[in-house]
Amino acid sequence: MVVILKENPDSGRISDLTAWLESLGLEVHPTVGKVQTILGLVGDTSKVDIELIRALDIVQDVKRISQPYKEANRAFHPDNTVVTIGDASFGDGSCPIIAGPCSVESREQLLEVALRVKAAGATLLRGGAFKPRTSPYAFQGLHADGIKLLLEVKKETGLPIVTELMDLSQLDLFDEVDVIQIGARNMQNFELLRQVGHTDKPILLKRGLANTLQELLMSAEYIMAGGNHRVILCERGIRTFETATRNTLDLSAIPMLHEMTHLPVIVDPSHASGIARLVKPMALAATACGADGLMIEVHNDPAHAKCDGPQSLTPGAFEDLAEAVRRIKPFAYKA
Amino acid sequence: MVVILKENPDSGRISDLTAWLESLGLEVHPTVGKVQTILGLVGDTSKVDIELIRALDIVQDVKRISQPYKEANRAFHPDNTVVTIGDASFGDGSCPIIAGPCSVESREQLLEVALRVKAAGATLLRGGAFKPRTSPYAFQGLHADGIKLLLEVKKETGLPIVTELMDLSQLDLFDEVDVIQIGARNMQNFELLRQVGHTDKPILLKRGLANTLQELLMSAEYIMAGGNHRVILCERGIRTFETATRNTLDLSAIPMLHEMTHLPVIVDPSHASGIARLVKPMALAATACGADGLMIEVHNDPAHAKCDGPQSLTPGAFEDLAEAVRRIKPFAYKA
Amino acid sequence: MVVILKENPDSGRISDLTAWLESLGLEVHPTVGKVQTILGLVGDTSKVDIELIRALDIVQDVKRISQPYKEANRAFHPDNTVVTIGDASFGDGSCPIIAGPCSVESREQLLEVALRVKAAGATLLRGGAFKPRTSPYAFQGLHADGIKLLLEVKKETGLPIVTELMDLSQLDLFDEVDVIQIGARNMQNFELLRQVGHTDKPILLKRGLANTLQELLMSAEYIMAGGNHRVILCERGIRTFETATRNTLDLSAIPMLHEMTHLPVIVDPSHASGIARLVKPMALAATACGADGLMIEVHNDPAHAKCDGPQSLTPGAFEDLAEAVRRIKPFAYKA
Amino acid sequence: MVVILKENPDSGRISDLTAWLESLGLEVHPTVGKVQTILGLVGDTSKVDIELIRALDIVQDVKRISQPYKEANRAFHPDNTVVTIGDASFGDGSCPIIAGPCSVESREQLLEVALRVKAAGATLLRGGAFKPRTSPYAFQGLHADGIKLLLEVKKETGLPIVTELMDLSQLDLFDEVDVIQIGARNMQNFELLRQVGHTDKPILLKRGLANTLQELLMSAEYIMAGGNHRVILCERGIRTFETATRNTLDLSAIPMLHEMTHLPVIVDPSHASGIARLVKPMALAATACGADGLMIEVHNDPAHAKCDGPQSLTPGAFEDLAEAVRRIKPFAYKA
Repeated sequence: MVVILKENPDSGRISDLTAWLESLGLEVHPTVGKVQTILGLVGDTSKVDIELIRALDIVQDVKRISQPYKEANRAFHPDNTVVTIGDASFGDGSCPIIAGPCSVESREQLLEVALRVKAAGATLLRGGAFKPRTSPYAFQGLHADGIKLLLEVKKETGLPIVTELMDLSQLDLFDEVDVIQIGARNMQNFELLRQVGHTDKPILLKRGLANTLQELLMSAEYIMAGGNHRVILCERGIRTFETATRNTLDLSAIPMLHEMTHLPVIVDPSHASGIARLVKPMALAATACGADGLMIEVHNDPAHAKCDGPQSLTPGAFEDLAEAVRRIKPFAYKA
Repeated sequence: MVVILKENPDSGRISDLTAWLESLGLEVHPTVGKVQTILGLVGDTSKVDIELIRALDIVQDVKRISQPYKEANRAFHPDNTVVTIGDASFGDGSCPIIAGPCSVESREQLLEVALRVKAAGATLLRGGAFKPRTSPYAFQGLHADGIKLLLEVKKETGLPIVTELMDLSQLDLFDEVDVIQIGARNMQNFELLRQVGHTDKPILLKRGLANTLQELLMSAEYIMAGGNHRVILCERGIRTFETATRNTLDLSAIPMLHEMTHLPVIVDPSHASGIARLVKPMALAATACGADGLMIEVHNDPAHAKCDGPQSLTPGAFEDLAEAVRRIKPFAYKA
Repeated sequence: MVVILKENPDSGRISDLTAWLESLGLEVHPTVGKVQTILGLVGDTSKVDIELIRALDIVQDVKRISQPYKEANRAFHPDNTVVTIGDASFGDGSCPIIAGPCSVESREQLLEVALRVKAAGATLLRGGAFKPRTSPYAFQGLHADGIKLLLEVKKETGLPIVTELMDLSQLDLFDEVDVIQIGARNMQNFELLRQVGHTDKPILLKRGLANTLQELLMSAEYIMAGGNHRVILCERGIRTFETATRNTLDLSAIPMLHEMTHLPVIVDPSHASGIARLVKPMALAATACGADGLMIEVHNDPAHAKCDGPQSLTPGAFEDLAEAVRRIKPFAYKA
Repeated sequence: MVVILKENPDSGRISDLTAWLESLGLEVHPTVGKVQTILGLVGDTSKVDIELIRALDIVQDVKRISQPYKEANRAFHPDNTVVTIGDASFGDGSCPIIAGPCSVESREQLLEVALRVKAAGATLLRGGAFKPRTSPYAFQGLHADGIKLLLEVKKETGLPIVTELMDLSQLDLFDEVDVIQIGARNMQNFELLRQVGHTDKPILLKRGLANTLQELLMSAEYIMAGGNHRVILCERGIRTFETATRNTLDLSAIPMLHEMTHLPVIVDPSHASGIARLVKPMALAATACGADGLMIEVHNDPAHAKCDGPQSLTPGAFEDLAEAVRRIKPFAYKA
């Protein structure tokens, strides 16, 4: 951390500041120019509140050099974290596929989709029981009944399930759920993050629509600070000025996150573009740049899906995608 | 709503679609060109799931003409909603000021700030007991103790209080709170919105960092659909590529929202820029373009505030701001 | 400037780097931690190519502390630059208004608008002869004929004129033009900037749709490096995810730029929102936060304007705006 | 095109509008609801000025259904345009690589890089003689001398050359240049686009940092309207709030543009991220989702490159990338 002081600071004030910084366990190295004075801080700055220092009246600016996240930081944990659920391992160099409908609508729908995606190679089943919808008048999911259907289909197919938790009041229903998803709109719902950090379940944490990679890792840090280290990060598109696609899939996030963190990073190409025809090319691109997994929306009847139909693949199109991913995987980027 | 069909659609399919749209209570008016066919839909389309129609295989695109929000829509409620709390009325043409520290730190701090801002003309006291912090290692607020201090200071000063609710599990503590704030990061925490829609308290709803005005109104709609119509909207800056300021305060949102909705719209210039020196000019600008109120961070000792110090004003600077706002108000824009 | 070295750097390499930095006229102050080494650079770093240093293999990162612009920097020129054209002075605490049609269409149109805006208090006339249009099929302006009409109307009304230069090949036509406008899309047309830096005319430089304040100042620096110091900066809205308005007017740019630079800063509220109804409230807001001038589109018949009609005011609406600006000005922010 | 009228429009005004629209060669189909009236326009709307209609006082809004570009539109030209230069064909299903240094620095540098990238499989040589630099104090290129060196090295290696034209005054120097590059900052320099539309050279058109795909195609339309149909589009990263990478590479632009246009689309992963380590994974991802070519910065000594060193690959790293691209290509997405 580097503290840049205002011009011609009072030397007594510098001594006070230096003493206070040292009391936080940091070494302080001053650089004194004719006009500008800089304090270089050495030590564990991850728990220093940068805003507190910036507020001091002799300080002009503070710049972090080391990252503010620690548990999630690859610098301190060089080896990949591998999160294994059933037959799927995220972070070991493979690229498992999570597939299923956007929302659980009926036993028939869910079972049919589950059997088809399993046959095509998916190793986890996704399906929403609680649906975050922009409009209060849109379909909000089957709630407890949806979870029940997911567990029935899990039993019948052997596929572990991933489903979204929207509020802590729903947590009791998630006992037999295999992976808890935290949605993009809840990426900074800090109370929710804290609580799932006390569960023993893998957490699939989606990047918020306007959150930086550093903020995504700070949210992972909330979960990990509670003791739960099985966090899977998910890139799902960010908000930009472009309107041809719903969001802009940020694939450079994959190699960039692989440098910043040891956690596995998967990609959801369905929500990013909101257009079914773009799902396959973007799934191949994600695989090519080293994604640790994919999450794909599949519906047996996309034209009548209760939500997000336009981005869902048919089971047939999913088979084609899964096969294409399998073929391209051996030629993908390895760090 | 306008439904644009794919080229050369099958006429039987068009009849099916038309019948289905009519069953939703809509009138359907087709425009048949040589290549392109368009269906104009007339009626209450606010509860139609646009995604459902877009997903149909004969449909190329759907465009909304009327807005998807109804309770919040000025078209259906031409008169301003006025939300009154104590001496403050939001939406009646005045510009009350909510002031106080970012977070409640101690009885002394809160009482001193409250007395000073009251003397300077603030009519509501703000202060965070539950603080959404990006880092799990940063100060998170005094929680129940913070609420207790707020209620004590309310008693002592007579100032009604505004404080943020981060999770439904905290709701019991808010019984005597006057205004519940929903923070920017929770603007699309739909379960939280739904539940505060069942309370009888005014809700101060902050715009998310990357949310459109339409989405802000859809979130207000969640609250209003539960029966609570006392919603105050708050612009607090959006995320852009600019880095000189923390966020970009979107002041055109004020007159734009005044066209779209009858709800009052206030501005928080402290969080938007993150720089104390910009708070006064931006408060004046907000007033000038018709804001229904302001929300200002004030701390008796900004350099030692436990959070957001760099954007807090001293009580003296607040007095100066409040006076300047009072003087400019008569010359502000009126729709 | 602070250079952060990679972990455990070779001491010989550090000496080489230090020697090279010193050869650029900089003092080098090292901070050596157990793991991290930082070099603080003191001196004139405005002409140091930061990318060159960042590329060195022992360097992890470089952070600027002082700004990369010099001529435009308030730190080196504490007093406001005042640019005077005819009766208008930008930067002296007043708020002159530039008004006129988006594009010059005919003598009658231009003269009528000019007389009306002059009567209402505008002190400069704007009008486009060369129009940057997104589509090659849209009206592109009257070119040389447009300039001719501007000069005729200047003669008749005494109003100095502001008009946009799109390409160096047009420069000869600008001999009698009073202020050369560089449009948002040309803000980083560096060859154009360089050449107008060799003219003796004031330059109105519009901020690009996706450019930072620092980049705007670097573009001003291009002009000033050529010897032309009469640069007026213009905020005209930036591109964000919001779609209710065409662009997002960034008014915090006004007080922020006033800190960063001594150059005057004006606001164009017409182009920012693209909606005539928002022009007046945003003009008042801009005035309130300290704008050094305004630029307003006025057309005698907005419904038949050849371009940008929806954002043009009628002469009557402009009179109302100018009067409101005059009344609010005494209560505006002063740094 | 759909014209939405304001509520309860005067029927005489509707007749006038209808007559005028018909005079533009359009069929007009009205949809009359109780409150809302919509006019569906059928015919060639690509040359209709949407702003002109929007400005009419009985009009509430206008929405385009067909695209405003015509020459670039795949709907009217279903077959891919293939642009062939020497041994490289863009748009025929192959993925040629353009490689070379960011800027031409010396004969030795350029020749060495050219020989190395040719041996590794590159079929075009890039190198900047005119460099758009944010700072007037940064290296601006060798200008005419740079073009001369490029032509010498072209002669010696047989590699056709691609280089950027920044201003029309430089055009005479480009006689023997094989491909004219229009840089991101000039994507909407309409005069430049118009003029290169009258040359007989292929144009490599880079997407602006904050431009939509539709605007990119409108800029291509400017070139094509002049008669030059050999346009190669290039995605090079857009500006977002993310700061970990310089820009955000928008790879979904590849399949999206392939739907919108028949023109070839290539990717420049070097400028997008600004980080050499991300170039290979992003080149693989671009290939995987169907890019028609790649443009890669290579420098024999990146640590001493005069510009953009941090994103340049060494010749050895380029060989590795080219080989990886070749191996993944057969498994890439095909529309």
